[in-house]
Amino acid sequence: MAAQRKLRMGMVGGGPGAFIGPVHRLAAEMDGKIQMVAGAFSQSAERSREAGERFGIDPARAYADYRQMIEAERKRPDPIDFIVITTPNHLHLPIAQAALEAGIPVMSDKPATSNYAEAQALEAAVAKSGLPYGLTHTYAGYALVREGRHLCASGNLGKIRKVAVEYFQGWMSKPIENTGHKQAAWRADPAQNGQGGAIGDIGTHAFHLLEYISGLQVTEINATLRSVVEGRRLDDDCNAFVRLSNGAAGTLACSQVAAGELNEMRIRIYGETASIDWRQQDPNRLIVKRLEGPEEIHHAGTPYLGHDALAVMRVPPGHPEGYLEAFAVLYSEFADALRAWQQGNANPLPPTLPGIVAGVRGMRFIDRVIESNRKQSWVAF
Amino acid sequence: MAAQRKLRMGMVGGGPGAFIGPVHRLAAEMDGKIQMVAGAFSQSAERSREAGERFGIDPARAYADYRQMIEAERKRPDPIDFIVITTPNHLHLPIAQAALEAGIPVMSDKPATSNYAEAQALEAAVAKSGLPYGLTHTYAGYALVREGRHLCASGNLGKIRKVAVEYFQGWMSKPIENTGHKQAAWRADPAQNGQGGAIGDIGTHAFHLLEYISGLQVTEINATLRSVVEGRRLDDDCNAFVRLSNGAAGTLACSQVAAGELNEMRIRIYGETASIDWRQQDPNRLIVKRLEGPEEIHHAGTPYLGHDALAVMRVPPGHPEGYLEAFAVLYSEFADALRAWQQGNANPLPPTLPGIVAGVRGMRFIDRVIESNRKQSWVAF
Amino acid sequence: MAAQRKLRMGMVGGGPGAFIGPVHRLAAEMDGKIQMVAGAFSQSAERSREAGERFGIDPARAYADYRQMIEAERKRPDPIDFIVITTPNHLHLPIAQAALEAGIPVMSDKPATSNYAEAQALEAAVAKSGLPYGLTHTYAGYALVREGRHLCASGNLGKIRKVAVEYFQGWMSKPIENTGHKQAAWRADPAQNGQGGAIGDIGTHAFHLLEYISGLQVTEINATLRSVVEGRRLDDDCNAFVRLSNGAAGTLACSQVAAGELNEMRIRIYGETASIDWRQQDPNRLIVKRLEGPEEIHHAGTPYLGHDALAVMRVPPGHPEGYLEAFAVLYSEFADALRAWQQGNANPLPPTLPGIVAGVRGMRFIDRVIESNRKQSWVAF
Amino acid sequence: MAAQRKLRMGMVGGGPGAFIGPVHRLAAEMDGKIQMVAGAFSQSAERSREAGERFGIDPARAYADYRQMIEAERKRPDPIDFIVITTPNHLHLPIAQAALEAGIPVMSDKPATSNYAEAQALEAAVAKSGLPYGLTHTYAGYALVREGRHLCASGNLGKIRKVAVEYFQGWMSKPIENTGHKQAAWRADPAQNGQGGAIGDIGTHAFHLLEYISGLQVTEINATLRSVVEGRRLDDDCNAFVRLSNGAAGTLACSQVAAGELNEMRIRIYGETASIDWRQQDPNRLIVKRLEGPEEIHHAGTPYLGHDALAVMRVPPGHPEGYLEAFAVLYSEFADALRAWQQGNANPLPPTLPGIVAGVRGMRFIDRVIESNRKQSWVAF
Repeated sequence: MAAQRKLRMGMVGGGPGAFIGPVHRLAAEMDGKIQMVAGAFSQSAERSREAGERFGIDPARAYADYRQMIEAERKRPDPIDFIVITTPNHLHLPIAQAALEAGIPVMSDKPATSNYAEAQALEAAVAKSGLPYGLTHTYAGYALVREGRHLCASGNLGKIRKVAVEYFQGWMSKPIENTGHKQAAWRADPAQNGQGGAIGDIGTHAFHLLEYISGLQVTEINATLRSVVEGRRLDDDCNAFVRLSNGAAGTLACSQVAAGELNEMRIRIYGETASIDWRQQDPNRLIVKRLEGPEEIHHAGTPYLGHDALAVMRVPPGHPEGYLEAFAVLYSEFADALRAWQQGNANPLPPTLPGIVAGVRGMRFIDRVIESNRKQSWVAF
Repeated sequence: MAAQRKLRMGMVGGGPGAFIGPVHRLAAEMDGKIQMVAGAFSQSAERSREAGERFGIDPARAYADYRQMIEAERKRPDPIDFIVITTPNHLHLPIAQAALEAGIPVMSDKPATSNYAEAQALEAAVAKSGLPYGLTHTYAGYALVREGRHLCASGNLGKIRKVAVEYFQGWMSKPIENTGHKQAAWRADPAQNGQGGAIGDIGTHAFHLLEYISGLQVTEINATLRSVVEGRRLDDDCNAFVRLSNGAAGTLACSQVAAGELNEMRIRIYGETASIDWRQQDPNRLIVKRLEGPEEIHHAGTPYLGHDALAVMRVPPGHPEGYLEAFAVLYSEFADALRAWQQGNANPLPPTLPGIVAGVRGMRFIDRVIESNRKQSWVAF
Repeated sequence: MAAQRKLRMGMVGGGPGAFIGPVHRLAAEMDGKIQMVAGAFSQSAERSREAGERFGIDPARAYADYRQMIEAERKRPDPIDFIVITTPNHLHLPIAQAALEAGIPVMSDKPATSNYAEAQALEAAVAKSGLPYGLTHTYAGYALVREGRHLCASGNLGKIRKVAVEYFQGWMSKPIENTGHKQAAWRADPAQNGQGGAIGDIGTHAFHLLEYISGLQVTEINATLRSVVEGRRLDDDCNAFVRLSNGAAGTLACSQVAAGELNEMRIRIYGETASIDWRQQDPNRLIVKRLEGPEEIHHAGTPYLGHDALAVMRVPPGHPEGYLEAFAVLYSEFADALRAWQQGNANPLPPTLPGIVAGVRGMRFIDRVIESNRKQSWVAF
Repeated sequence: MAAQRKLRMGMVGGGPGAFIGPVHRLAAEMDGKIQMVAGAFSQSAERSREAGERFGIDPARAYADYRQMIEAERKRPDPIDFIVITTPNHLHLPIAQAALEAGIPVMSDKPATSNYAEAQALEAAVAKSGLPYGLTHTYAGYALVREGRHLCASGNLGKIRKVAVEYFQGWMSKPIENTGHKQAAWRADPAQNGQGGAIGDIGTHAFHLLEYISGLQVTEINATLRSVVEGRRLDDDCNAFVRLSNGAAGTLACSQVAAGELNEMRIRIYGETASIDWRQQDPNRLIVKRLEGPEEIHHAGTPYLGHDALAVMRVPPGHPEGYLEAFAVLYSEFADALRAWQQGNANPLPPTLPGIVAGVRGMRFIDRVIESNRKQSWVAF
């Protein structure tokens, strides 16, 4: 076996002040399969160059524009193998399209696009290109999320009857978008963020996790949105009922005005004979409660877990892994898939890695929530 | 100060196989203010007498019928001071009416009656009688529920914006009402239990706690009911959106088919600057999360709590109290009120003790949930 | 079956300002088997009468002195069936002796006496009398303590190898015995409390629980004592190594200067293949960790528990019981034993109820700890 | 500002089957400051080359021997900037000495050496060389460990009185060193591991954390060791009393036969007015309990933390970080120090980064524990 070169990544977005860009860099490189070598980090040439320096990127590969990066990289002998998109949401589609048209695979931050029509367009572009497209629904990378998915799929819980998923944050409890908070500002601006506020930013995570773990699809939804903070233009609080493809039902809630909560994402799935309970802030434990017998805590890394959970652990049980490791799991899977694709595998993406289908579902979710809220009634999904 | 005689209690219900009767006896007597001296424990004279013996009741005061008890007790020199009703729901109204008409104060297990019309009738009967009427919404007796109520009322959380209350059990995950489980059987029978299944049995608790702690009223509700277990005649799972009198909103959920849950009642209330989080299964801790500053755990019995919480503790902090102590708090307050009433105080019930108003609200809740579910839309409360 | 009269209890101690007296009254009466009818609540006749009034005791039976109570009650047609001792420790022996000599069974607060020699004298007195003697090592009454005991005895953990028990409080972090705190004052006074400070007050609880749950005996101990608060005359902090009768070993620690702790008593017992972990402040859950397989949480009241745990529950699983219920379990067992004894059973005390043997062990513990600390080395137990 | 090249790392150890080698690689590279470019991964040339390939190392830089690596790298235009030692303990000293003599800075896995005499020799070698030497006491890299250290140093707890630190694992509950478990085999072999078993492997972590967080030094120790598993040649269980430089005292315990525990490292430090409580398995929360006022949970990443904790966070509060991030913090600090040293700073190591002093303390700890156990008494530290 010959040493494999690292895959070369080019980033769009992630310039000064960005939170998620450095996280993508770190996660992409964690498992030693990928190296970030280029980037269009900012629309300002100077700020892009500065960001590149901070990242240790060759100055010649710190571009002022993603189109420029695509063009320039194509001409290099060592071009980027894929791009990662970490910009505000309204730029996701044009960047992805440009990359795909140029034959460059795409890893994208979520949500896939800024609305459902765009997501459909992107789905078509991905299909047409035949290129790998991955979506960083981070929480899908946690080992115990995969264990939960495995328990659902294997029938360990019996037929699924009921779900309860929530994602509560408190950081937008005040109108911080008006006082210079960059992360809040673009999230509160429909032009940059799309029509979904909390539902786009975190509701899509909750929605994805629900379908990802349960293996079911939402078929109907009844949602009610609020903009609790006065003057806010997008929703900051959402409660929804959902019905699922197997007849189960439940709730999905998200909020960015739940004062005192950090990233309280929790999912509970109840089957006929048992249920699972997982919280992102305590990610190395999966609680399994059974109709009969003691409550169980399944710890990450332990040998009694299924293959999917064990495959993504890096350290022994009792050594906590976290958000960055979950993120890196997705990059690691994407890297493997990308290499397989480079070697001729036409459908390399594993079912555990969120892709364009999940992306379209997520945008559909936002669309349906807004429609349901407008009608104040159930809508088909 | 002269030694006070104990108040004399007569029970209706609580015969062989009952769970809640012995709990009422124990709770009523815990603080040394009340003694159970009579009972119509069962509609079978023999079983009533047996129950009386087990309770150590004078055989002459173990009656076969509540009417008989009322009549006989009136003629005694040492009659009962009040009755407690612990029967299935459909009997609550006639028993309470008979007692009130006979001039006997009433303590009642919840729900107050088996439907809303009955609750209105009972409210009229209570008003007409001028007698004390208490309702054992047990959870209102927990010290930290009262601390939460105090924090809401005192503005400690800022204006309340959002609530999330749930009561999940799993014990009816199978059709046990068909296999000889007495507790399940009457709860699953509309004739005995009224029109509400899970919503009547535990949803009313969640609803009461929501209004009790927040100090707000539900003004609109949008509920969706299911009978998850095949063949079950009443609901066993409910999800609802609520809107509150101050403009806040949130969710209320209850289920008796949440496999693996025991009595998972949890309430979270989010204000502008802080939130509270309380779970019945961990009742001696109230979690307070603030927009700024560390998360706080307020322990029962500690001197930093408010008066209402400290007033109901029996043991020092760090010694857990539980369900029976919460129950007994209500009886202790009822006993004090009853004595005040006997001494001429026309309005003796403290605001911390649930009474007929809470009872009517609870039945209204069931009525509105069923109506909302029928319409699959919001209804006014 | 004829209705059984309640057993009549006379209390010594428990006057104004006492914490533990009212707890004994409440616990004794909780299960409807016992009624407190008399008391020598204080050495002041007036204060005893006041306490009696508050307890609702016939004024004629509120005595100024335990000797007086013993004498007077013997002459009544309805004398007390037993006395309970809730005084400071130095009075435990003379009171118990007087009762036993008068043919009156004894329930005693712990520790049994104020030193080991006294305990031996008491053991002889109990033996000579042939009367039931119970000791309220409260924590032995928790359902899940009994489940832990059952798991140890049944071999569920494999051979026991290691124990870790601790009881940490913080309430004596300042010299409150000098500033009018009555509970602290007598505990800090060797004349009233005996030679053990924290080790007597709470260390004996930890020690008892260790032997009670594990089923093993301490055979050697190496303890180190401190009086952390300047000027304190008794120990307020203790760490000890212990060796056990089966070759296992471990630690026992207690402190009353662990700032911020309430009643943090925790016991962990490690066997070859599994371990148990129980905390008094979370008493309705017993954690079982296995060498193989998920961690388990055993909930109080659930059907998968053993007989001893289920026998002492009063409410369904998910409804927390607490300190008072644990206390009441001991009284309930004592009442049953007392009645059996009254009916001629010479050895009625069940193995689950702590008695004089536990009392002697506890005083031996204090003696050995002090000796070990003096020598700064291991001592035989 | 010009882009800085990454520092070049050469690893000794970390070949096939090693757990800790890949962890070092990942942690070193996480923050983009370091790249592993060379290694003597195994004493077998072939296995070293294989490991190098897996790591993506230039085959020419996968050496069969650390001496060979040192020599070869010195001749390169792009030599390694430092080496990291991840071998079994008995090789730590010779490798470190060889590197230091060759002018190459060292990062070492803990413990520093295999006994105290070696540690003193290493200390001298480090002093003589004037080179940076870092020690990966991983847990020192957790943000909330640093917050605890800050709270102690700033007097937030009052004067420290009492400590309790433990590190319990269960994975060596059976004699797995005899059945092909590589990690267990060298740890159980005195020739490879030194004289300390559990005390060397995990006790040193507990000891380091105790001194690191409290800011105090152990001055006396009384330890008792056991080899619980029959035939095991080194200790697998240790309990110790400690006395600290400010007069405080407490306990230190470690075990590898605590069946069911994963990596239960917990440290509690009690001051006059407050205490802290931190668990490695729940690393993003620091619990602060106060003599007065509610218990507090300090969450990683929140703005109310001190500088040292905030300086090492990579993601917003509510997104858990874990073991690898803690590890990487040490590498990041080492990288910064190394660069400062390369630029002429003679004493670049920050006080937060464990170095040779901590290394010597750790080996002294093992030495003193063994001596105390031999004497079964207190020994000076």
